[in-house]
Amino acid sequence: MESTQKRNMIVGQSGGPTAVINASLYGVLKEGLSHPDRIGTVYGMVHGIEGFLEGDYINLTERAQIERIQSLKTTPGAYLGSCRYKLPEDLNDDVYPRLFEKFNVLGIGYFFYIGGNDSMDTVAKLSAYAQKVHSDIRFIGIPKTIDNDLIETDHTPGYGSTAKYVATTVREISLDAGVYKHPVVTIIELMGRNAGWVTAASALARTKADPNPLLIYLPESDFDTERFIEDIRTAFERSTSVIVCVSEGISDKDGKLICEYGAEAQVDNFGHKMLTGCGKVLENLVKSRLHCKCRSIELNLPQRCSGIIASQTDIEEASSAGSFAVQSALDGATGKMVAFRRTDSEDGLTAAELRRGASNGYRIQNILVDVAKVCNQEKRFPDEWITSHGTDVSKEFLQYVRPLIQGESAVSYRDGLPVYMHI
Amino acid sequence: MESTQKRNMIVGQSGGPTAVINASLYGVLKEGLSHPDRIGTVYGMVHGIEGFLEGDYINLTERAQIERIQSLKTTPGAYLGSCRYKLPEDLNDDVYPRLFEKFNVLGIGYFFYIGGNDSMDTVAKLSAYAQKVHSDIRFIGIPKTIDNDLIETDHTPGYGSTAKYVATTVREISLDAGVYKHPVVTIIELMGRNAGWVTAASALARTKADPNPLLIYLPESDFDTERFIEDIRTAFERSTSVIVCVSEGISDKDGKLICEYGAEAQVDNFGHKMLTGCGKVLENLVKSRLHCKCRSIELNLPQRCSGIIASQTDIEEASSAGSFAVQSALDGATGKMVAFRRTDSEDGLTAAELRRGASNGYRIQNILVDVAKVCNQEKRFPDEWITSHGTDVSKEFLQYVRPLIQGESAVSYRDGLPVYMHI
Repeated sequence: MESTQKRNMIVGQSGGPTAVINASLYGVLKEGLSHPDRIGTVYGMVHGIEGFLEGDYINLTERAQIERIQSLKTTPGAYLGSCRYKLPEDLNDDVYPRLFEKFNVLGIGYFFYIGGNDSMDTVAKLSAYAQKVHSDIRFIGIPKTIDNDLIETDHTPGYGSTAKYVATTVREISLDAGVYKHPVVTIIELMGRNAGWVTAASALARTKADPNPLLIYLPESDFDTERFIEDIRTAFERSTSVIVCVSEGISDKDGKLICEYGAEAQVDNFGHKMLTGCGKVLENLVKSRLHCKCRSIELNLPQRCSGIIASQTDIEEASSAGSFAVQSALDGATGKMVAFRRTDSEDGLTAAELRRGASNGYRIQNILVDVAKVCNQEKRFPDEWITSHGTDVSKEFLQYVRPLIQGESAVSYRDGLPVYMHI
Repeated sequence: MESTQKRNMIVGQSGGPTAVINASLYGVLKEGLSHPDRIGTVYGMVHGIEGFLEGDYINLTERAQIERIQSLKTTPGAYLGSCRYKLPEDLNDDVYPRLFEKFNVLGIGYFFYIGGNDSMDTVAKLSAYAQKVHSDIRFIGIPKTIDNDLIETDHTPGYGSTAKYVATTVREISLDAGVYKHPVVTIIELMGRNAGWVTAASALARTKADPNPLLIYLPESDFDTERFIEDIRTAFERSTSVIVCVSEGISDKDGKLICEYGAEAQVDNFGHKMLTGCGKVLENLVKSRLHCKCRSIELNLPQRCSGIIASQTDIEEASSAGSFAVQSALDGATGKMVAFRRTDSEDGLTAAELRRGASNGYRIQNILVDVAKVCNQEKRFPDEWITSHGTDVSKEFLQYVRPLIQGESAVSYRDGLPVYMHI
């Protein structure tokens, strides 16, 4: 009789990878495997819902028996592969019955999707369709995005590791850029098309000995090229080496992206339009206006895939979000996303939390929020945390972000290089 | 009577920083401080010979008494600051007597300069001038360059850490770039204008599960855009995600740099010429010819300033080169550069060497070579190590490079971020 109650579960990953999306998968998998009375086989969609629609999935229960799944916690990328696939708005579209037929064939009772905004949209639509057709499959979303732009959660898994990577790398670049005695401007372009969270984290790079980055520009503020040149002139009064951190998505007061200033007139020898980032545009501007040495650096993908510089706090939180999703589904939840609520209490900190510096009362609690409320919304960097006429961020932000970067990932090495897990 | 034999010493750093140029400084400083009977004060030039000429130096003996100089071993950048300053060819130029007058005022008997090709030129000229004027100051160069392009040495301090950084980061980028099911080309542009050593190290990123980078192009081979497109077509037969690693200095058979293909017709909205790297040019080419997703990434400064991903072998070797320089000067050497000779013997490995994986008989011996022979020469990547029609590197190279990336740096962390030393 118990076997009839037992249902299988499936998990997928979607959207751009982060350093900890696999830590969430680990949490889902570990929790899924620890309820053999209620959960049968754990399946994984390969390339998310897009791959699953084409019949691409694997049996994770079998894999977990032969592989050390612990390595998932420290492996960047998306172990199961990912997709950028949006389900149709119209719940009458035939993709829905096709999907649910596949769920039924596999005996799926629980569905977990790890991803950002668009992935939460998938979870919302699937749970709405389930309600429509009176299916009892439970759908839970697990947040993931380095952009930290999901609403209804204190922060998103993935952000802490990117914040740590950005702060570390900006600190190291400043050491390198500052070695000469002559004035130099270094522009570091960071991820974030609409939200400045990633760029803001560069403020953590500062030390008593080095005030860089002296200037920080987020997409939430209008960017003015004339004021920018003045800002650099002022910054030179504090240091001969000026580090400027900019979000890729900064735009002027008319909403025109700064990267577009450079894109229009550029055609290469093959006759193709060249697209460069805003960093390169600003580098050119500084060189021509201030006649000083200037270099631009785009930190690019390593911001979201550095396993070595990942935050241990982020890894643990991502994993716990995955476990909590499974527990919640078993408890009957559906149409929800796991979210983080920051609590002020210092009580109840575990030894592990204390070890990784969960001080100053920082503690995160997993909660559930309606996934339909979260998707297609965007949490931008708060205006009140932007200071110095749009060139810096406040102490309140630093207090908010600092706990998220605590602790170092315990990556395994073999022959001098990190060992990561492949499907 | 002994006090009259006692001489002071001075050390400087020059050229682009590396992750371990401060480890060499540590070696010089530690050794310098451990001969109080023969060496008086240890001075440091600030901003190399250029700063010193303007009277900028510090007393390192005093600093070492109050600071934990051990941190220098794990601090990237150039603690003393750096310069790009070439001494005049004409030894009759008045800069030489000016410099030696300053040496005499400070009671300098030993001069150490940590740097690359141009810095060795400085050492060669100063020792030639010393000979000319019968000065008994001893001049020793300590090699440093991520480019690994100095002759007369098995490899250069700094290269191992960059090789480790490149291999690690390419491996991580491949995990990220390979998550989607659709074909994608990722072009990673690496440092190396004339020599392919840094780019070649990307081959270490490969694992049994991931053959990327599938294509590797060095400046030592002529680059042909048509063949490149064919190479990618072929690579797609092996993987839907193709990672291409290219040196910034690749050029066509006429010697024209590939980055120049893009630079000519580009003018931004401010009317300025935009200079982009070869990666961006090739990205455009791939997009227009193969109509697939393509992204280019320039790893930029982090290649040479990542303290966290530095090689412990490199750190120890850089430090030992610094110590050996001081010992050699005390023994009477001048006009020399410290070099590494690789020995095949497994005998005499220290416990520390064994711990960090100094296996397969890898062992390095410090030797001295004539600095005048080294400077202004360039060791390019050997033709016989370039394989697959200029798209790969040989096993012999991998055997050569693998020992250099062994061991992880023991960086200290505070509040989630690395702690580095500032002057």
